[in-house]
Amino acid sequence: MTVISARLDPSAPEAAIAAMASAVTNWGRWGQDDALGTLNLIDETARTRAAGLVRTGVSVSLSLPFDMNGPQQGWRRRTNPVHTMLDTGTDAERGVQGFPHGIGGADDVIAMPLQCSTQWDGLGHIFDHGVAWNGRPAGDVVTSDGDLVTGIEHAASVITGRGVLLDLGRHVSPATGELDDGYAITVDDLESCVDAQGPTSAVGPGDILLVRTGQLTRARRDGWGEYAGGPAPGMSFTTAPWIHARDIAAIATDTWGFEVRPNEFDDAFQPLHQVAIPHMGLTIGEMWDLDRLAQICAAERRYEFLLTAAPLPITGAVGSPINPIALL
Amino acid sequence: MTVISARLDPSAPEAAIAAMASAVTNWGRWGQDDALGTLNLIDETARTRAAGLVRTGVSVSLSLPFDMNGPQQGWRRRTNPVHTMLDTGTDAERGVQGFPHGIGGADDVIAMPLQCSTQWDGLGHIFDHGVAWNGRPAGDVVTSDGDLVTGIEHAASVITGRGVLLDLGRHVSPATGELDDGYAITVDDLESCVDAQGPTSAVGPGDILLVRTGQLTRARRDGWGEYAGGPAPGMSFTTAPWIHARDIAAIATDTWGFEVRPNEFDDAFQPLHQVAIPHMGLTIGEMWDLDRLAQICAAERRYEFLLTAAPLPITGAVGSPINPIALL
Amino acid sequence: MTVISARLDPSAPEAAIAAMASAVTNWGRWGQDDALGTLNLIDETARTRAAGLVRTGVSVSLSLPFDMNGPQQGWRRRTNPVHTMLDTGTDAERGVQGFPHGIGGADDVIAMPLQCSTQWDGLGHIFDHGVAWNGRPAGDVVTSDGDLVTGIEHAASVITGRGVLLDLGRHVSPATGELDDGYAITVDDLESCVDAQGPTSAVGPGDILLVRTGQLTRARRDGWGEYAGGPAPGMSFTTAPWIHARDIAAIATDTWGFEVRPNEFDDAFQPLHQVAIPHMGLTIGEMWDLDRLAQICAAERRYEFLLTAAPLPITGAVGSPINPIALL
Amino acid sequence: MTVISARLDPSAPEAAIAAMASAVTNWGRWGQDDALGTLNLIDETARTRAAGLVRTGVSVSLSLPFDMNGPQQGWRRRTNPVHTMLDTGTDAERGVQGFPHGIGGADDVIAMPLQCSTQWDGLGHIFDHGVAWNGRPAGDVVTSDGDLVTGIEHAASVITGRGVLLDLGRHVSPATGELDDGYAITVDDLESCVDAQGPTSAVGPGDILLVRTGQLTRARRDGWGEYAGGPAPGMSFTTAPWIHARDIAAIATDTWGFEVRPNEFDDAFQPLHQVAIPHMGLTIGEMWDLDRLAQICAAERRYEFLLTAAPLPITGAVGSPINPIALL
Repeated sequence: MTVISARLDPSAPEAAIAAMASAVTNWGRWGQDDALGTLNLIDETARTRAAGLVRTGVSVSLSLPFDMNGPQQGWRRRTNPVHTMLDTGTDAERGVQGFPHGIGGADDVIAMPLQCSTQWDGLGHIFDHGVAWNGRPAGDVVTSDGDLVTGIEHAASVITGRGVLLDLGRHVSPATGELDDGYAITVDDLESCVDAQGPTSAVGPGDILLVRTGQLTRARRDGWGEYAGGPAPGMSFTTAPWIHARDIAAIATDTWGFEVRPNEFDDAFQPLHQVAIPHMGLTIGEMWDLDRLAQICAAERRYEFLLTAAPLPITGAVGSPINPIALL
Repeated sequence: MTVISARLDPSAPEAAIAAMASAVTNWGRWGQDDALGTLNLIDETARTRAAGLVRTGVSVSLSLPFDMNGPQQGWRRRTNPVHTMLDTGTDAERGVQGFPHGIGGADDVIAMPLQCSTQWDGLGHIFDHGVAWNGRPAGDVVTSDGDLVTGIEHAASVITGRGVLLDLGRHVSPATGELDDGYAITVDDLESCVDAQGPTSAVGPGDILLVRTGQLTRARRDGWGEYAGGPAPGMSFTTAPWIHARDIAAIATDTWGFEVRPNEFDDAFQPLHQVAIPHMGLTIGEMWDLDRLAQICAAERRYEFLLTAAPLPITGAVGSPINPIALL
Repeated sequence: MTVISARLDPSAPEAAIAAMASAVTNWGRWGQDDALGTLNLIDETARTRAAGLVRTGVSVSLSLPFDMNGPQQGWRRRTNPVHTMLDTGTDAERGVQGFPHGIGGADDVIAMPLQCSTQWDGLGHIFDHGVAWNGRPAGDVVTSDGDLVTGIEHAASVITGRGVLLDLGRHVSPATGELDDGYAITVDDLESCVDAQGPTSAVGPGDILLVRTGQLTRARRDGWGEYAGGPAPGMSFTTAPWIHARDIAAIATDTWGFEVRPNEFDDAFQPLHQVAIPHMGLTIGEMWDLDRLAQICAAERRYEFLLTAAPLPITGAVGSPINPIALL
Repeated sequence: MTVISARLDPSAPEAAIAAMASAVTNWGRWGQDDALGTLNLIDETARTRAAGLVRTGVSVSLSLPFDMNGPQQGWRRRTNPVHTMLDTGTDAERGVQGFPHGIGGADDVIAMPLQCSTQWDGLGHIFDHGVAWNGRPAGDVVTSDGDLVTGIEHAASVITGRGVLLDLGRHVSPATGELDDGYAITVDDLESCVDAQGPTSAVGPGDILLVRTGQLTRARRDGWGEYAGGPAPGMSFTTAPWIHARDIAAIATDTWGFEVRPNEFDDAFQPLHQVAIPHMGLTIGEMWDLDRLAQICAAERRYEFLLTAAPLPITGAVGSPINPIALL
């Protein structure tokens, strides 16, 4: 990977992406029909071992609230969730619902982008030059009817396994616990964080890696600002080989876009996505709330847990809102 | 409970509901500000023990697909989910997205009732004579702004614990594995099922009970028909004291409405809901897919597992779509 | 046109469509940048004359209600409108809205396909072998971002002019006023109807032609059944040259799909659309309620009026819900 | 009316509103079952006369675009419209739609608040101390099921008649054509504008009055800013008696909220709405684009026209998006 990162030329994203893609490709690794990518790396043994990590029974939700106070500002029609009621308690109380024997009810509806808040990006979410995961033409995969091949429903039962938290915010910036916007997390950062946090942080095959930058902590304190799409700390493009070599099953961060922004090339948009999703087949989580988990992990000096982050099996979706649960 | 069920007069639902409500009430049990009801019964010890049940690492999704082929037919504006794309692979492939260096993407949006498919009913979902869980006026709890007091977001982190499957379909109708529509599951049925299934089926405090009727198996084979709201097997009104006495944390079934339909009173609508939600504070799951889980449980003669069924923390929601995961 | 209809071979739709397309094409007629097609034919003189037709001041809405009781059954995700409230009178009355000095309010939201009820099909709605109106590649015109070239907003101000009703239901089937499903309205039918109805029915350049089949009358009486997409009376494929020769600006019917269904070719789907929209540039109205208008026209023996049927200028939409107003 | 405006005490909105309400009430005027309010004042004679005003055949759309670039910022869940595609030209071109003989199509969906852009406020939109138009309890009128009594569908056919433009922006501020935010349009302003514009501006029974402030011109130039809900020029509370005395059928402005903002009382929210809608039964239009119309009217020195502004008949809606058409 040193080779690749050494030749990173900010003015030539396309060449760098192509080189990186070919270095980390998993095409064909799980067969021609694969719809799971690196999620294949979470097997039953991994899950059994992960369940064995549970000590205290503390469960932590890693999800932001889903409501109108979220970070979205309309970019590419991504709005915050609009939740409306079909029936209410005020109606029930007033007796206008027409039900017998005093029963009343409330029902509700939601309209939301699947990428509006805490979420998984599915394998149909990103393409490289019109090519999707496993080398398929993007137009064979995702049409207006949704993802016909790698829809998030394929991952309905598989995303439960060992989670590992790397608290880069606290490791790199112990005073504040927050990385600055634009900070690119490198392989050295990741490895020194693992070392500092100790053996429960070792990252290996089938693990779901959670990387805390602290940007969400800042947004919660100072307001969303440009959280959805603006400058942010995040994974460097150069971490792709590290992720690949460790056979990580999935990665999530507490930022909008997983990778550092502005991106590390001059005129660029999410180059690490372009490598990680269509070439590695990596499922990526974004806008996860890792703050309470980080506090517990630090207090217990234990950074591993059973993580269950099942997507809603929305047929043909290229992502899903989720409420990931860490069970410690 | 014999006393109560003995005096069940089909022509007098209101009196029966009032009597039952007062027999099984949990009002005040967890304080005046409680927003969780019986979910309080899942504590950290219960979760640690539940994690200890994992043997094989097999994980099973208990969720139906979320798509237009679902069971809803428009009753009270409950539709199936409408999933649309904001960006597609066909667009990416054609190069019309305006991104640099060959990256392309797909994004999506969903509009759906929170009660359209596999789901939890939150504590604000049902009222009794204008009164919500814990004795609050319904109009103080659920307005057009949603559930201001007991919204599903309060349960974001808590619904992970021991799940127990009672396969009533297989127990009562071994030949087909399916209960007839209109079959009311009684306390005797539940207890004889526990006995027959053996010690891993014992139901106690803090457990999440899953009751399989087999109706979903039938609907999957024969078509939805009136699955959403029509006749169905389900829990008898008379089971409320049994549920209450065992301190069950939550119950879910493979039917639209949890309780038997037609209901057991002449002119009635979901009387067991009217007792269970506002009076017991019971969280109820509906339209869960228990078929594959039931097969595994039967094969292994093991009916307990770690269940994680975290709602999306939609602020103020009276329910949530979910993808419950059983980890065996 | 006789030539074309004479060689209609039910087994060869593609050849017939190609021949018809080339007979009736308007490509280039209004310039390379045109976004209006035959709507260009409604000019200011036509509008002034149309205003001069108003005699009694009776105004008639030609729109169906927009609600959950509509005809849609989910075909290609076309649902009926879902209308939900953001604020209600029950909330206002109860005083939970937080406004000063006793003011209260109600607000609402709608989610609906633009093709769910009374509507215009815009010029981006139909393609022929990947080609859109005026010869543009379909993928240059309509992406996931909507219709970038011929969106319905271009027609925001133009669709007001002379409307003419041809009541084919009453003309062909005087006893019932309804054409049978599958009845293909021919040029002879149209011309004999004009003759029978008299001079106010003459159809010429810039007119908006309304064709009543009576199918909606039947659906209103008997239930929607397969109104949305099933068998229906409607325009024969062979009427395209007649429409073209008369320079009609737009046509609307009281059916779901404007043309006869089943279509007149063996394995076919809406061949007249395939000619009329991308080749003629014809704006087509569907599911218009022409019943009350037909009664008035028959009573007054006057079949012309000022018609205003402005689409909502939804940017990039390929259609629009409308409430057309006939002013007599 | 001088009496009422003279006693306007900024610290006492409630008393002023009550006094004004009783001065201008129309309760009972059109019977106990009325669902139209002042729209009753547009009769067939008025419509025939209005059609007679058409001279040039120029038609002008008075609607803003409906898209994500609109003014809404999420206040009370009012978002801009979200328009998504069910089928696209890119899909059609690529041949993935499964239709025969080369036909392809595009369809679309919209999700939007009915109050998000150019619109009518229906009679169920505002209440005074829990009371709706004609003295009905608000909770009898608008529940979660929508407006059960005065839904906008009742006005489906009636809103076509004589429109009159009063260009207050140009009249009061001839240099800029724009009133400052916070400018309260008074009766004197209205009357001197009528005088200045000449006899075609006379306002009388059944007219639909359009008041241009110029704020939209400013927003179009400078960006939306707080257009949706912030400071704005608009009608003074004290104009209610003038509106009432003239028997105006409906009024619309080019601002978000029709009346001046900040409102003329200290702690207030839309006091003129509170009088005009529930007491006068006045239908109010907001966010109308009057700029091109104003230019034509000024050029021709003719301020009257046929106006057709039919709401979509959304059953039970308290408002409707519209595309009003002025035909001159």
